[in-house]
Amino acid sequence: MSIYFTPDLSALKPYVPGEQPKDRKYIKLNTNESPFPPSQEVIKAVCSEEALRLNLYPDPDAGELCEALAQRYGVSKENVICTNGSDEALAFAFRAFCGSGRGAAFADITYGFYPVYCDLYGIKRTILPVQDDLTIKADDYIGIPETVFIANPNAQTGLSLPLDVIEKIVGSDKNRVVVADEAYVDFGGESAVGLTKRYPNLLIIGTFSKSRSLAGGRLGFAIGDRELISDLNTVRYSFHPYNINRLTMAAGIAAVGDTGYFAECVNEIIKVRAMTRQALIKRGFDVTDSRGNFLLAANKKISGRELYSRLKDMGVLVRLLPDDRIKDHIRITIGTQDQMDTLIRCVDVILKGLV
Amino acid sequence: MSIYFTPDLSALKPYVPGEQPKDRKYIKLNTNESPFPPSQEVIKAVCSEEALRLNLYPDPDAGELCEALAQRYGVSKENVICTNGSDEALAFAFRAFCGSGRGAAFADITYGFYPVYCDLYGIKRTILPVQDDLTIKADDYIGIPETVFIANPNAQTGLSLPLDVIEKIVGSDKNRVVVADEAYVDFGGESAVGLTKRYPNLLIIGTFSKSRSLAGGRLGFAIGDRELISDLNTVRYSFHPYNINRLTMAAGIAAVGDTGYFAECVNEIIKVRAMTRQALIKRGFDVTDSRGNFLLAANKKISGRELYSRLKDMGVLVRLLPDDRIKDHIRITIGTQDQMDTLIRCVDVILKGLV
Repeated sequence: MSIYFTPDLSALKPYVPGEQPKDRKYIKLNTNESPFPPSQEVIKAVCSEEALRLNLYPDPDAGELCEALAQRYGVSKENVICTNGSDEALAFAFRAFCGSGRGAAFADITYGFYPVYCDLYGIKRTILPVQDDLTIKADDYIGIPETVFIANPNAQTGLSLPLDVIEKIVGSDKNRVVVADEAYVDFGGESAVGLTKRYPNLLIIGTFSKSRSLAGGRLGFAIGDRELISDLNTVRYSFHPYNINRLTMAAGIAAVGDTGYFAECVNEIIKVRAMTRQALIKRGFDVTDSRGNFLLAANKKISGRELYSRLKDMGVLVRLLPDDRIKDHIRITIGTQDQMDTLIRCVDVILKGLV
Repeated sequence: MSIYFTPDLSALKPYVPGEQPKDRKYIKLNTNESPFPPSQEVIKAVCSEEALRLNLYPDPDAGELCEALAQRYGVSKENVICTNGSDEALAFAFRAFCGSGRGAAFADITYGFYPVYCDLYGIKRTILPVQDDLTIKADDYIGIPETVFIANPNAQTGLSLPLDVIEKIVGSDKNRVVVADEAYVDFGGESAVGLTKRYPNLLIIGTFSKSRSLAGGRLGFAIGDRELISDLNTVRYSFHPYNINRLTMAAGIAAVGDTGYFAECVNEIIKVRAMTRQALIKRGFDVTDSRGNFLLAANKKISGRELYSRLKDMGVLVRLLPDDRIKDHIRITIGTQDQMDTLIRCVDVILKGLV
């Protein structure tokens, strides 16, 4: 830290993304990327003449992209904002809706970035612990004044709240915003996008990083009442108006358009997830009923740290999580069937060595 | 504005970027884009297999890109941070170095985003008016405790401070940061990058949007003492660690590498700028001695607004600026020689009509 760093950030603990080692080739199951390449339509769009006119600024309103998302989700263009990854949508939402003493409320086990945004902006946080079975207790989110952030399906656990529960939380108090972070929803969760038409206090956040194979393109979005979106645009235009570059814009439009490839990828992940989960359960693991493109798993015979290390030695990278309550778990991204077969073979070797 | 928008931002006035009309084809001389396409090496890099592995996250440290910039500017990788446009570098710098009552100081006529960042973060601002000839008075920046932001060459005017003046300001007080925003420096300004080795309180901000024909790719950077850069990375990792997508990363590396094309484009802009300036002066305009890829011009015979409108009607888009002190001016981006010939022909028609 320099002597110039603003004292009000001196205690800031930045988010720590999953490791991206360059020392060797791993089967990378640690950052919830898609194992499938982007749609061929995306490749074509990125390499098109229009996208490559890079000397010209992109459309600061990302009009065509917002329109494509609006059509896909059955809303209007004014209900959509696009961002440099969904992290940026979250960063804007924390700044727009949690200041002046309002505060933010979220689970103890959830996306690790929420507390970081609180520190970055000086926002008071209220932590609502998940229950022993790692599920979110909906009643905790009712009757509190804070802006609520719920990852649904939840990060780390993959556990999903049904739509009627989200509606109950949203409808219980229309004087505060509820943010449903639906990064993983396409893999079997229930999206609350439809509710945004009836609830002006519901904001949905989505990403192209998972189900649309565009983690490397950095594209996120938010959907909600036009007034909420307008507020987020006020923040965006006060941060950097040209936040989506021409290439990512073209990639996003093409990705939304290729619904066939999207369905194919998502269905394959869901299928492989089910088989992997059964294989792990058969081997004595506790595995959450995840609706994400990952599983959270623990085995009483071996610590999470030990299992993580042994797998890494064998060339398979999984995620060890910082949360104390799930420190005996590992989080495994769902890769291809082949990759998961390798994972299970490695697990067998490790477990056998313990006997 | 929704009823949920945080009250501490209710007076926030977002930045207004130059208009991007879609109604007709204009000769666009209003947003200081390069009239030249990106380097062919950039096109190749963007469409390469590695860049298009978009299902994988980009390197959050942008290691290869930082290394390329470090080599180009004769510094170490640890002295460089890359950002989603230079606006993001500015946004991070305002957050990192102006809080806890420190404040920010900058000119009244300069990049219009500086006051917006102050509002976004609740930073106290000190405005230091430029002199009647629109030059910055260096002494105003000495003996004040605020973090200083100087666009050099200055936005809007294109006027440049020599290196020894920047050094005098930086060296006058090593207890506060001086940010030199060098977005336009390649068109004839003097870069202070070399001074960062001797002054731990100097931060240089650069962009790929102008001299490297990558406005549509969104890439900016900052160079400074490793501790300053480390602070900016703390903020970046608390906002969104994967801020540079794979495509822009590849484009940036290739753009830095193609030094021949860079020199060619820059030299052409400088040549065309000189000819355009002379042509305008000959027609009775006051024109600043701009070192940017634009000219600031005024003619006593016609108001800035009138000239802007007439040119727009004729299909040439220039920028009318919100600053009251230069409201009689228009800002003209330097395009190709052909585009500038057209501009001058239109000006002649307009001036003739006034007689």
